Amino acid sequence: MHPYDLIIIGGGPAGYVGAIRAAQLGKRVALIEKERPGGTCLHWGCIPTKSLLHSAELYSEIQHAETFGIKVGEVEANFARVIQRSRSFSDRLAKGIESLFRKHHIEHLTGNGAITMAGQVSYTPLHGEPRTLAATHILLATGAKPQLLPGLWPDGTRVLTSREAMVLSQLPRSMVIIGGGAIGVEFAYFFRAFGSEVTLVEMLPQILPSEDEEIAVELARQFNRSGIRILTETKLERAEVSEKSVKLHFSGKTTESLDTEKILLAVGVEANLEKVLGPGTELELERGFIKTDARYQTSIPGVFGAGDVIGPPWLAHVASYEAIQAVEGMFTDRIPHKPTIFPSCVYCRPQVASVGLSEKKARELGKNYQVGKFPFFSLGKALIDGDNTGFVKILFGKPEGRILGAHIIGAEAAELISEMNLGMTMNATRDHIMATLHAHPTLSEAIAEAAAASIGEAIHL
Amino acid sequence: MHPYDLIIIGGGPAGYVGAIRAAQLGKRVALIEKERPGGTCLHWGCIPTKSLLHSAELYSEIQHAETFGIKVGEVEANFARVIQRSRSFSDRLAKGIESLFRKHHIEHLTGNGAITMAGQVSYTPLHGEPRTLAATHILLATGAKPQLLPGLWPDGTRVLTSREAMVLSQLPRSMVIIGGGAIGVEFAYFFRAFGSEVTLVEMLPQILPSEDEEIAVELARQFNRSGIRILTETKLERAEVSEKSVKLHFSGKTTESLDTEKILLAVGVEANLEKVLGPGTELELERGFIKTDARYQTSIPGVFGAGDVIGPPWLAHVASYEAIQAVEGMFTDRIPHKPTIFPSCVYCRPQVASVGLSEKKARELGKNYQVGKFPFFSLGKALIDGDNTGFVKILFGKPEGRILGAHIIGAEAAELISEMNLGMTMNATRDHIMATLHAHPTLSEAIAEAAAASIGEAIHL
Repeated sequence: MHPYDLIIIGGGPAGYVGAIRAAQLGKRVALIEKERPGGTCLHWGCIPTKSLLHSAELYSEIQHAETFGIKVGEVEANFARVIQRSRSFSDRLAKGIESLFRKHHIEHLTGNGAITMAGQVSYTPLHGEPRTLAATHILLATGAKPQLLPGLWPDGTRVLTSREAMVLSQLPRSMVIIGGGAIGVEFAYFFRAFGSEVTLVEMLPQILPSEDEEIAVELARQFNRSGIRILTETKLERAEVSEKSVKLHFSGKTTESLDTEKILLAVGVEANLEKVLGPGTELELERGFIKTDARYQTSIPGVFGAGDVIGPPWLAHVASYEAIQAVEGMFTDRIPHKPTIFPSCVYCRPQVASVGLSEKKARELGKNYQVGKFPFFSLGKALIDGDNTGFVKILFGKPEGRILGAHIIGAEAAELISEMNLGMTMNATRDHIMATLHAHPTLSEAIAEAAAASIGEAIHL
Repeated sequence: MHPYDLIIIGGGPAGYVGAIRAAQLGKRVALIEKERPGGTCLHWGCIPTKSLLHSAELYSEIQHAETFGIKVGEVEANFARVIQRSRSFSDRLAKGIESLFRKHHIEHLTGNGAITMAGQVSYTPLHGEPRTLAATHILLATGAKPQLLPGLWPDGTRVLTSREAMVLSQLPRSMVIIGGGAIGVEFAYFFRAFGSEVTLVEMLPQILPSEDEEIAVELARQFNRSGIRILTETKLERAEVSEKSVKLHFSGKTTESLDTEKILLAVGVEANLEKVLGPGTELELERGFIKTDARYQTSIPGVFGAGDVIGPPWLAHVASYEAIQAVEGMFTDRIPHKPTIFPSCVYCRPQVASVGLSEKKARELGKNYQVGKFPFFSLGKALIDGDNTGFVKILFGKPEGRILGAHIIGAEAAELISEMNLGMTMNATRDHIMATLHAHPTLSEAIAEAAAASIGEAIHL
């Protein structure tokens, strides 16, 4: 049996991207995935949720169309159509990946793959008998799935995970979301925009716990204004699921009980490790995720890991990056890198995006820094677009002024952060940003002004 | 008489920004401007036109709202309201600048200023007698105004410049725009979006003559699709203005005659030099604009120039940058820079933004380069947003792979270009871009993919 150069288990943003990269390097690649390629990101994550959020944003915008000189008749959300649109992209984008597989002669094996020993995978087709495949390299990229809470099984009616929440047939009257991270926050915005009563519950003192505190405070302010109720430092103790509602009991800062039509669990993710290991095979884990070395190799020689399954930050672009690095480490003399500078984006409105250290983290690390902040309120473009909430906040290390972290809350934050990503990757300083001409009128001017503000040189403050 | 440290003539993006910067440096500053501060940009350029364009974009978007699951009744543009909204920002932003003037103790002198000799300005208040002011430094920042064509006086009814075009009381049935540069193109989009019959006439072989050819071709394709008629290599020979219409006669590729309700002249700009020089004072010019040296000094010692009045590229952000550089050169030991890397943005839909060399220019300069291109068509975020026209094109110099130029046509191009601005300012290479994690799903991923595409490593192609 002629072995493959690479067998990949899992067809998400790590797996399919790794497969394409290996094929570009002339390698013979098979990818085992039980569903269509694209993974959680494409079918149950980034892509469908961004479609939902885009519809929500448009819905809000249209309600203010008169301000912009556009008269509209009665505005009404067609919730089923909103959901249906979000589902249509899975199919279209999966087709795109499948055609890339054909172009690159990547074998897409539909079914399950399990590592039986170094260099060997047991492949079980969806319909058919298991067979053994050999490969010089194996990449595990099986991703992660929503974490559950003990005793609260997602029934799809009362108790939901993100997966069920994104395919509801009608808008819930009320929803309590447990977990104020990116997923919880995005769903809170989405359901509230269409009119649900939304309560967002977070155990820690701030929503978006990994974001800069000032950003979280501003988002909470905007959410409160839109009618989302936020309960921080509050823990779900017990849920009584009945036919018509769920009764929730909390501890912490909030002790009242709440009745809700639906509860959405957004408390985190855990590695997809089920069926990945054949009998007798063992993989070293770290906090429940596959442990990898600097070259992405697991504890089994020749078996590599990339993406959510090897641990945080559980971001699609990080997964793809890791897979490319891992594959280049296998087949080229490039030295693979582990991601250290990566953006995080939250696509509610206002959007949140960040890269690098939060101010709290910078303090904890004993960094000496200066902060520059600039509000979109003072920016022509934001005013024109009718959305001037939020600000840009950048941390510059002293004395060189290198960017330690950048935090944006406001329109197009996820696009704006890319300048900061490149900047941090290139070790940019405040001087570099200030020497860069930012087009007028754009939202990106806020970045230049924030840099200038850190030394008292902002023009429009 | 105690002289000012700096007298600035002209209160646009060069003048007012220079005033604030000088005040930040502790200087005593007076600014002479006959209108409220903000200049053409704020009152008759960038700001009001972007409001018009934003309304146009929203109008188009709402017409497709059903696709996104939002039902709207009859959609109708209230043209007067669209115009009115665009005017409201002038007032609001001018107030902002005025309050910055107060904060920084900048004297705003309303009226005209003329240089009578080195260190001396004759100030004529709007109502009152001229008086002489002294200053150790003078900055000329009087900007530019629309160029006219011989024999075609803008009457505001049949013959317009951008100034009249942005305050029409009702939508014209038909409009011929002479000049396919940024201004012509933006108005073409605007009037067409609301339903006018639009013809865009350009003498050169492409619209947006200073942009990359492929970008111009793509924009022309999208414009044609929207019903805008484009006549390139066509020159206006003669116009017969009558009470009800204008009859236009062309030469070049198009020789037919056209009848139109209105004609808009967008053929370029010329320096505002009227009344700037007192009797007997002379300033060296270059192609009609004030000539300045590396420190922005004019031919009169102590008299400096910045912004549109010193010549191309006639961009607000360049004007502000020049003013800051000029002022820092006057009062600090920073060495002033002249802008070499600056973005250009056109806010029609699809947007166009670029920085650095076009491919044609790179060829002319004998550069050895590689091109990377990536279409938004292949990008999840563009698909979700319902706007996946256009592409990113980046030129990388060989062998180091430094960015020579970047060209973007598509949604949010003006924001996306900022990463490329910083990159070029920092001498970034393809490797830097490819090492940068671009958030998924964002439009900025197209930049990373274009970089990868230049060496055959794009994933989604």
